[in-house]
Order: sequence, then C-alpha cells, then structure tokens
Amino acid sequence: MPVGTGGTVKGVPQDILEELGVQILLGNTYHLYLRPGVEQVRNLGGLHRFMSWPRAILTDSGGFQVFSLSGLRKVTEEGVTFRSHLDGSSHFFTPESAMEAQIGLGADIIMAFDECTEYPADPARARASMEMTLRWAERSKKYFEEHKHEVPWSSRLSSVIGRLQTQVPRSARDDNIVAETATPTLFGIVQGGMDPQLRKESAERTLEIGFPGYAIGGLSVGEPRHLTREIVEATLEHLPADKPRYLMGVGTPEEIVEYANLGVDMMDCVLPTRAARHGLLFTSEGKISIKQARYAADDNPLDQNCACRVCTRYSRAYLRHLYASNELLAQVLNSIHNLSFYLDTMRRVRDAISLGERARFLSDLRSARKP
Amino acid sequence: MPVGTGGTVKGVPQDILEELGVQILLGNTYHLYLRPGVEQVRNLGGLHRFMSWPRAILTDSGGFQVFSLSGLRKVTEEGVTFRSHLDGSSHFFTPESAMEAQIGLGADIIMAFDECTEYPADPARARASMEMTLRWAERSKKYFEEHKHEVPWSSRLSSVIGRLQTQVPRSARDDNIVAETATPTLFGIVQGGMDPQLRKESAERTLEIGFPGYAIGGLSVGEPRHLTREIVEATLEHLPADKPRYLMGVGTPEEIVEYANLGVDMMDCVLPTRAARHGLLFTSEGKISIKQARYAADDNPLDQNCACRVCTRYSRAYLRHLYASNELLAQVLNSIHNLSFYLDTMRRVRDAISLGERARFLSDLRSARKP
Repeated sequence: MPVGTGGTVKGVPQDILEELGVQILLGNTYHLYLRPGVEQVRNLGGLHRFMSWPRAILTDSGGFQVFSLSGLRKVTEEGVTFRSHLDGSSHFFTPESAMEAQIGLGADIIMAFDECTEYPADPARARASMEMTLRWAERSKKYFEEHKHEVPWSSRLSSVIGRLQTQVPRSARDDNIVAETATPTLFGIVQGGMDPQLRKESAERTLEIGFPGYAIGGLSVGEPRHLTREIVEATLEHLPADKPRYLMGVGTPEEIVEYANLGVDMMDCVLPTRAARHGLLFTSEGKISIKQARYAADDNPLDQNCACRVCTRYSRAYLRHLYASNELLAQVLNSIHNLSFYLDTMRRVRDAISLGERARFLSDLRSARKP
Repeated sequence: MPVGTGGTVKGVPQDILEELGVQILLGNTYHLYLRPGVEQVRNLGGLHRFMSWPRAILTDSGGFQVFSLSGLRKVTEEGVTFRSHLDGSSHFFTPESAMEAQIGLGADIIMAFDECTEYPADPARARASMEMTLRWAERSKKYFEEHKHEVPWSSRLSSVIGRLQTQVPRSARDDNIVAETATPTLFGIVQGGMDPQLRKESAERTLEIGFPGYAIGGLSVGEPRHLTREIVEATLEHLPADKPRYLMGVGTPEEIVEYANLGVDMMDCVLPTRAARHGLLFTSEGKISIKQARYAADDNPLDQNCACRVCTRYSRAYLRHLYASNELLAQVLNSIHNLSFYLDTMRRVRDAISLGERARFLSDLRSARKP
C-alpha cells in the first residue's frame, strides 16, 4: 500500500496511481484529523470522494503517528493526549475517538487503536503496554460495532458508487475496485514488543476478541532487522492464514518479498515515495542515488527492466539534472518510478504465489487421479 | 508557449504537456547554459532528446535573463559579463556565444542576442541601446549563418526523428510535431524602449538585416500596461504580417487575447506556471486564490467550463487542502490547470481567427460568383 498521508501520495496524481495499478492506499488518521479535519472530509462525502480515489483506502488508527511525537504526548488508560506538530494545539485520542475519526473519514479498512511499544522496553513495560492495547482493542471493537454505520455516505448509500464513478474519468471507471460494502472493516493489531512469548499471547488474545483481519504492529521502531524478522515469524504462526495478515510500516523491496514469503498479505511503507524525494531510486539492479555526478551524462533509462512511464521516456542524465536543479519534476518522476518498482515487486510475488498454487493444484490433481 | 526554464515546465511531466496540446516550449539559454551546460546537452543529442520532448522548442538568447540579473552584469560592445545566480561564477555572453549555445542546445527557433533596454531610459540611452542591439543582430545572423549546421544531431541527422520517436511512448508518436528541418531558424528582436519612433526605426532596420520571424523585446520591464499595448501596436505595424510576430514575456489571459487580436502570433510567459505554484488559478470566471478558506468546503470543480484532468476530477476543497498543506501535488495540479486554461484560450483565439477567415473566404466567394 502506497502511503497517502494527507489525502495524497506526495507528488503523484490519482490517475497515475490508477495507471500504476495501486489497489489500496493508506491514509494517516492523525494527519487527516489535524488537516483538513474529519468533519470537513465527512461533510465532503468521505476520503474517497474528497481525494477522488475510487479504489480501497485503509486508515491507520493514529496510534503510531502519536507514538512518533514522543515528547509531545502523554498516555493514560483512557487515551493519549498529544500536541499537534503543526500548531502545538492539544488533542486527545481514545480508542473511541480513533474509531469515530476513521469511520468519519470513510476508509474501507480501519485499524484498532493501539499503543506502539517503544524499543527497547523492559519485560514489565512490554507486558503492561500489550495489556493496554488489548483493552483498547476491546473498546475499539465495541465502539466500532455500535457506530460502523455512521460512514460519510450512510444517508445516501445507494448513490455513493454512482457519484464516485461520475467523478472519475471514463478511462478509470471500468477497473475501479470500490468496496461496495456499506460499512468499513476493522482490523486488530498485535503488540508485545520483542518477546516472542508476549507476541504469542497478544495474538491469541486479539484472536479471542475477534477481527476479520490482523496487523502486526510495534515493529520498525529502531530494532535490528534480524529481530524484526524473528518477531514477524513468531507472530505470524499464531495468526490465521485464511484472514489478511498485515505487517505495518515495512519495508525495503527485499523485505517485502521476504515477508510476503513468510505469509504476510499486506504491507505499507513511506520508503518508496520518501526515498524518491531524496533522489534514492530502486531498480532491478539495486539502489541508485540519482544525485551522483556519474549519472550526469548517462543516456540510459533509470532501469532497463522497468516499463514505467519514467523509465520508458527519460534518461538517467535527465533525472539527475532535474534532481541536481531541485526541480519539482524530479520528485514527481522519482516517486512514480519507485512506486512502480514496488508495485511490480508485489505483482511478481503474487504471480509466484499463484504459480505455486497452480503447481500444487495440478500436483494434487495428479495424485488424486492415481488409482 | 509554456516556459520550460531548465528543461522542464516546472512540475508537469512531458506526456501531460503533450496531452494538453502544447506545440512548442520555451527553454532559457541562460539557465541551461549554467546547468546542465550546453556541452552536456549537446553530447546527449540536444534538448529535444535530453528532455524527451519531440515537439518544437524555442530558446531565448539569454539577453533578457542576464538583464534581469541587474547588479551582477556588465555590458560592453563586445558582450555581457555576468555572474551566475547559482554560484557567483563569472561568465561572458556575446552574440556569437549566444548563437553557439542555442545551436548547441538544438532548439528549433533561436533568438538573436539583444540588449533589453531598462525602463525608464532617457532618449539617448534608448537609442544607444537600440543601435547596439542592431549591431548585435548582425553579428548574431553572421555567426548563425556560418554555424547553423552545427546542431547536436548534425552528424547523424537522418536518425534524429527516429530516435525521438523510439524514445517517446507509442501514444505520443502519431501527433508529434518535430520540426524536420536540419537547422534551426533565427528570429530577430526589435528594441527601442518606449519611443514609437525608435521602435519604428528598430523594426525597419531589423527587417533590413532580414529574419524569418521577428520578436518584440524590451517590454514587460516595469512600464504601465497601457504603454506596453501602445508600443506593441506601434511596433507591429512595421513588422510583416506574413512572418511570425513574437511578443516576448506576456501576459495574462486577457492580454494574450488582446495581443493576438492585434496580430501577435507567438507569446511566452511564466505566469500560468509561476502563479499556479503560488495558488493563483485562472478560470473562465476570473482569478481564484485557492488558499482562501472560502474554498475549504467547496465541492465544485475549480472551473465548471474547463475539461482538463484537474477540473474533471478534483474539487476546489481538495485543491485548497493540498495547497494549505503545502503538498507537492498542489503545485502539479495547479500548473496543469493553468496551462490548460492558457492553451484553451489560445485555441479559442485560433478558432475565432479561422472562423473569421472562413467567413471572409465565403463572403469573397459569394462576391466572385455574382454576375
């Protein structure tokens, strides 16, 4: 999932996201809550309509964003008090208000409000944090079940798809993937720090509460990468394979392949777009820092093996010139390429999975036919 | 002509420029000379290939840009010494070196090196400046005629169109408008300050030197608008109507209609893109400053009468949010809309002209048939 923090994947128009094959975007509740505000988005028909994005949207709960504010926040059993990074104003998120915000934004998949345990955390702290996330998960689910119909289009449900389709250009209508459900779907989040036993317990007790999908939170918080992988593995085995398993906030192209291979179904990361804005480009032959002088006279495409609209049209020399000149177009083209590279990577993963499944199916068929 | 200062129309990918119907772009010799450098562009096959732009390109001579540096430049009969705005390094432009640079960049239309007379200028100064521009025009033409074959593709002329066509996506190939000429075309520039008599003399003596097209320079330098119009009119009447007449550096949507109506064939201006980056948008109902809070909940398209990809997809509320949040996409979408508005305006002007010509043709036909 590309990250569209404030209702936009930075620098990339929505029609290009569609062309790239983006099926689902992530929106950040914390950012949208502060600007333009949940009521504003709700009154304008929800985030889909507001940003003219007919395909699926997942919003995070705001928990991780608030966690990132460190000095600006205070956590109690009731919720989190934090100060806006924009104007220093004080705000209060609870499991209930985080659900209210996400339902108001009109996302298709919304996330339970959790506490992202910091790294490192001692055993007592990791347990206490996990226990609170479980209590918050129950409160999230309770509020969600009671209010899930309060979506921005609840009063005019039958027309929402129609309106979206009117708004988007004809070319984009055919393959739009709007969830035709009237209410969003709530995912639970597993915490438990870096302790496999706590992760197991968190997974089992989150499963007891019961959600249609499960996320692994609290990773990519500064721990070494081998530990991330270890905890992902230790958590995944306790999550049902027939429900979506979502690993939050990863990763590099290599990592997303690795995690998909372990059984992760969904991931989100700002890396492709953020790196792009800093001139760091992912290619089939590794990372390229386009600012380097060695590319100034390089007439080759950025990535010979990439069919995106950047690689088929522009040279490394041109991209290097745009970046070195601090041109807006550098950020636009770099973001388009990196997203294309990530989405291609995930397409290859899906192809490999379906190829494997076909091979298994054929092999099963052959076994069954044996007398 | 949209302005693509440093080999890019800020924030707008080339395929969108094609989609908008841009037939010709302006590149700034001064900027391209400093970065990435003429030799760099020449070695990469010229500006068309470097920026992957198969349609026409006009480069200015650098004279106006250097003029804009004021404190950083020194003018002598031989040429202009100036300091780079990027790193303070010292450079020297002459009529000869300005031709060499533009031929090296590989533009389709290049401009004689002129001195843009400052405003206000006393009569003696305006005359001296005009006289020097005339001497520089002769030197420009002489160098141009002797070196015009030294284009970046001179050694491999037959393949240039082919290479461009290979590089651009299939969809863009059919309607590309690459000038199939082997050499660029040189336009002369009329100066003469704000004195109609001097303008007349400048026009007549520039015509004596002889160019396939003529530009009116030295306007939009701080003079009141009525004076601009007066000088344009006073100059146009001395320029042949069967050759392109190019008014440099104007203007607002109202002005470009007005000047086209007076007989101007070509104009360039950074206004549509620069204003867009500052949230100032041109619409069929006047200018809109999209940052205003009044648009925060406005679900209407930016311009009801505009069919561009911004107006058909996004609301004013969304564009306002992007601008207020300082999002990259604001600058991209705003630039696309403003360019679309300008190009639509010029299309309407051309339609009106051809309608008038058809009406005149039919009327002539009717008169001829009368017994």
